[in-house]
Amino acid sequence: MASQKSDTAMSPKITGELLRQLRQAMKNCKFYSEPIQAYIVPSGDAHQSEYVAPCDCRREFICGFNGSAGTAIVTEQHAAMWTDGRYFLQASQQMDNNWTLMKMGLKETPSPEDWLSSILPENSIVGVDPWIIAADQWKNMSRELTSAGHSLVAVQDNLIDAVWMDRPERPSTQLRTLGLEYTGISWQDKITALRGKMSKRKFTWFVATALDEIAWLFNLRGADIEYNPVFFAYAIVGVNTIRLFVDLKRLSAPAVREHLQLDSPSKPELSIRTLPYESVYTELQAICAALNPKDKVWICDKASCALTQVIPKANGSPIPYTSLCLAKAVKNATEIQGMKVAHIKDAVALCELFAWLEKEIPKGGVTEISAADKAEDLRSQQKDFVGLSFPTISSVGPNGAIIHYRPLPETNRTLSVNEVYLIDSGAQYVDGTTDVTRTMHFGTPSAYEKECFTYVLKGHIAVSAAVFPNGTKGHLLDSFARAALWESGLDYLHGTGHGVGCFLNVHEGPCGISYKTFDDEPLEAGMIVSDEPGYYEDGCFGIRIENVVLVVPSETKYNYRNRGSLTFEPLTLVPIQVKMMSTELLTQKERDWVNEYNRKCRDVIGAEMQRQGRKEALDWLIRETQPIV
Amino acid sequence: MASQKSDTAMSPKITGELLRQLRQAMKNCKFYSEPIQAYIVPSGDAHQSEYVAPCDCRREFICGFNGSAGTAIVTEQHAAMWTDGRYFLQASQQMDNNWTLMKMGLKETPSPEDWLSSILPENSIVGVDPWIIAADQWKNMSRELTSAGHSLVAVQDNLIDAVWMDRPERPSTQLRTLGLEYTGISWQDKITALRGKMSKRKFTWFVATALDEIAWLFNLRGADIEYNPVFFAYAIVGVNTIRLFVDLKRLSAPAVREHLQLDSPSKPELSIRTLPYESVYTELQAICAALNPKDKVWICDKASCALTQVIPKANGSPIPYTSLCLAKAVKNATEIQGMKVAHIKDAVALCELFAWLEKEIPKGGVTEISAADKAEDLRSQQKDFVGLSFPTISSVGPNGAIIHYRPLPETNRTLSVNEVYLIDSGAQYVDGTTDVTRTMHFGTPSAYEKECFTYVLKGHIAVSAAVFPNGTKGHLLDSFARAALWESGLDYLHGTGHGVGCFLNVHEGPCGISYKTFDDEPLEAGMIVSDEPGYYEDGCFGIRIENVVLVVPSETKYNYRNRGSLTFEPLTLVPIQVKMMSTELLTQKERDWVNEYNRKCRDVIGAEMQRQGRKEALDWLIRETQPIV
Repeated sequence: MASQKSDTAMSPKITGELLRQLRQAMKNCKFYSEPIQAYIVPSGDAHQSEYVAPCDCRREFICGFNGSAGTAIVTEQHAAMWTDGRYFLQASQQMDNNWTLMKMGLKETPSPEDWLSSILPENSIVGVDPWIIAADQWKNMSRELTSAGHSLVAVQDNLIDAVWMDRPERPSTQLRTLGLEYTGISWQDKITALRGKMSKRKFTWFVATALDEIAWLFNLRGADIEYNPVFFAYAIVGVNTIRLFVDLKRLSAPAVREHLQLDSPSKPELSIRTLPYESVYTELQAICAALNPKDKVWICDKASCALTQVIPKANGSPIPYTSLCLAKAVKNATEIQGMKVAHIKDAVALCELFAWLEKEIPKGGVTEISAADKAEDLRSQQKDFVGLSFPTISSVGPNGAIIHYRPLPETNRTLSVNEVYLIDSGAQYVDGTTDVTRTMHFGTPSAYEKECFTYVLKGHIAVSAAVFPNGTKGHLLDSFARAALWESGLDYLHGTGHGVGCFLNVHEGPCGISYKTFDDEPLEAGMIVSDEPGYYEDGCFGIRIENVVLVVPSETKYNYRNRGSLTFEPLTLVPIQVKMMSTELLTQKERDWVNEYNRKCRDVIGAEMQRQGRKEALDWLIRETQPIV
Repeated sequence: MASQKSDTAMSPKITGELLRQLRQAMKNCKFYSEPIQAYIVPSGDAHQSEYVAPCDCRREFICGFNGSAGTAIVTEQHAAMWTDGRYFLQASQQMDNNWTLMKMGLKETPSPEDWLSSILPENSIVGVDPWIIAADQWKNMSRELTSAGHSLVAVQDNLIDAVWMDRPERPSTQLRTLGLEYTGISWQDKITALRGKMSKRKFTWFVATALDEIAWLFNLRGADIEYNPVFFAYAIVGVNTIRLFVDLKRLSAPAVREHLQLDSPSKPELSIRTLPYESVYTELQAICAALNPKDKVWICDKASCALTQVIPKANGSPIPYTSLCLAKAVKNATEIQGMKVAHIKDAVALCELFAWLEKEIPKGGVTEISAADKAEDLRSQQKDFVGLSFPTISSVGPNGAIIHYRPLPETNRTLSVNEVYLIDSGAQYVDGTTDVTRTMHFGTPSAYEKECFTYVLKGHIAVSAAVFPNGTKGHLLDSFARAALWESGLDYLHGTGHGVGCFLNVHEGPCGISYKTFDDEPLEAGMIVSDEPGYYEDGCFGIRIENVVLVVPSETKYNYRNRGSLTFEPLTLVPIQVKMMSTELLTQKERDWVNEYNRKCRDVIGAEMQRQGRKEALDWLIRETQPIV
């Protein structure tokens, strides 16, 4: 689990003047040849990133709401913003009464398309910036609006930017090169492998737009977006050309020039042509103008509508997953080793936090925020620490029941020996990315808290220990995580796991474990996902047990149709608190799993603590990993 | 599980002359204004029935292959037929060398659309009978052909019928009326409920095309299609009109006239206008011609393209499930009671069969066919027996591993005390439909057979005993059935369960339990599905344990968000053979489940056997239901 940006300001933004200016821009033929009756402001950036840089927070700018998910629409008369249940309260506090909050998921709430159809005059023009809407979303929205008699049009200049006077610059942080000791495969070999897949599927061009895919492909990292070590770029790979679109100033560093062999390419087909970030559109146009009828261009259907529409229909239709997305998801031996090392360091820091909390909480004065700060401080002492991988969810008692909680000064609670503490946190290290949740009690948990914790633990183990055939999709494992909760009439309303990048985004596709998806890619050895069932008792407490786990081959007694089997190996090695368990509810197999897991934590993390000389944490670790009998 | 029609003839049909005639028809402007370059022959009838009447076996007529699934396409030069892995052998034996077998599911096999695109000259016309292709299939196929530069056209007269000289007549069997004691709800109340849903969703017209939905709506049954108690008809329900399209001769019987109140309708809005079956098209045209812009017509996207295209786009787009499909799936108290009674009678017959087999097999001479015949004979002795609900799968040893096996004289094996026997069978009774599979050994099973049986049993129990929240879709339970098999490296390549009708089709939507679907409707109390995991060891044996189970509310300790919980109650009450179990592999909970299940079989079925004076079967039942210790 990783929460989303949901910062500070809880008083409404005054938007009357901004809306007036936006509505003027909607009528201004400088931007579009005809007046626009409605303008859509999505959340994303031009790369459909989950987290966005400040310069891309356009929806927040126009309406004030800064949650991670939301779509604003402005018409001549109305302004409305759609978001989901996580954010109803926050959005209602951050928006002034120029705005109508559209509560997604409620039956009475119309979809944006239905709402537009109900209020717009016939034959209206609905505008959107084609760069920040994905091709598949554009397609659906356009179809629905067209069938209602309107039209969706692409407005090339962003109208929010036109009225946003102090809009921040697009970040252009220093690039970091990653050597083979971290990546396992050179970017040259990744390009060659990509070309192999292009040739197999008869593509002559590949357009990469997702920032994590480009970072992975070139073995480069940046810091353009908080928590995500990526940089703004596009790449277009041909059968013997490579174009990288990026702020050219970033390429002046000698280490970067050498890494990319900009001055002395080893082979002509591995020579990178560097071009300005903004020139991707005209360059792709030029490429497409020169296409032969048989040439095919590979682009993801999550890429921006703007780029996708440059490609003639005959030369390629957008497809759900790119080759890079899948290649990146299957970690190689070096990446796996790096992830293991990162998780060991991360576990040392987290165990140290718990040892410290155990000592400090009874004295009073430890708060959700100070505990989160302490966790960050301890992590930052570990080698190759870069930053957090998402904002820490540090929550006590009732705050733990708010799934995407992030402590703010006005909600900040003090930790005590009377309430359950849930901390979901992770970091970026140069060798890997972590994401771990532990639910702890520093006093005596109630029988009910223990009972719920134990059901969640049973679900966690059921997934972690599951054996399943090669080719199984992650969504087929989701119910294993819920069976014990379901049997007692309980459940949790989020998915069970997401893909995790290696010194990349903490959320990545195309695999995961969720009842909500069906088109996920099958799990295969080397993929890394989270396993994080939970239970949330509104107003009381929250429980979640999250490990990052690696998909590994499993030895089975038989081997039906030679398909082979898979299972998971936990990478996260932080003890699971025995005090929170009703051990009598566990089967012998489950008790064995817990003992074996905690023993491994003691052995592996204990050795590292010894090496680092962290004695207090080691004492805590040894005490917390006594086997259940 | 219910196998499909896969009859006798295993020598290829000679099709040269037929293809010559069909190709002439394709060029004949009597049928279509321009010559057609390819003609598609799907499997279905105009109601997209799973089983079809002899007059609708057009694909079989043209190519010889009579399996349940297959699509034939004839061009000027080629003739090709697509079917799946179940039928590769059978199709290759039944088709002559005018035909190319297209093996679906193999990577090298092109889709029909890709194949057509690869062989047709540019701008070709591909024809199909719009009555026997569903609207959603038409849409997909048309889109793909159009993007390849061809066009899909509707040929109103079926070209197979044009060359099929001795085509059988469409059946018009006697209609059977069902009173409230069987249906629980009068057809008048069903119409009123339907109109309620129409009004809620703002539809002014409802077009029913699925034969089982029409039979259910009017509380009528027929025998037009083998195994399925349905009759050829359409219905169009308006806000105060009802049109029933059916061979009018069938309505002369006084019981039918009275049932439908044809001569004295109670209320004008419940007066049924009866029209000839064939007039549905012109009548729907007339209705659509008189539509107001706000009128909306409700039709399923599985309805024929022919009828769907009559409806102006502005007045309704086809949607996946009709209201009737869902209403039919949720059985009322009377239907549930009927299903229970039917399953008790069915269990008496099946237990009798097993008692008889136990006695007769050692003497030799019992074959797969004679065992199936005996089962039918015993079922036919039960009250209100109508016929089988699908062709009996009676299979010994290696034949058991052929999932859709049906014994034929040339494959017929003799039952022995040395091989596993699998029988999957069911019947139609006036009060309900059954479908049950048992896997038995009449000698001493091997350790491996017992081990596999026990894994299958664990999966069967895991589904049957599962507790899950209201609103859960059946596909989320599928993995529960596989977990024990997966852990040992085993699996089965079919779904786990299908909806079952009440004196209706043994396969019905919109719910089920399968990893293959995602758009199934959530399970709700009153739905009835099968629970049938299996394991198949090619060349050796097959195992399947199938009960029909009823979705019932479940009492749980807690009740998260007041959603309520569900579980299953087995309707099938035939003992599961303890001899086949490795009881040491079962948990205590699983042993308790088996003992409780077999005890219920003894109590309920034993009482009925006593009532019917079936002493030998009762002795067998009592012996077979001794508890495991």
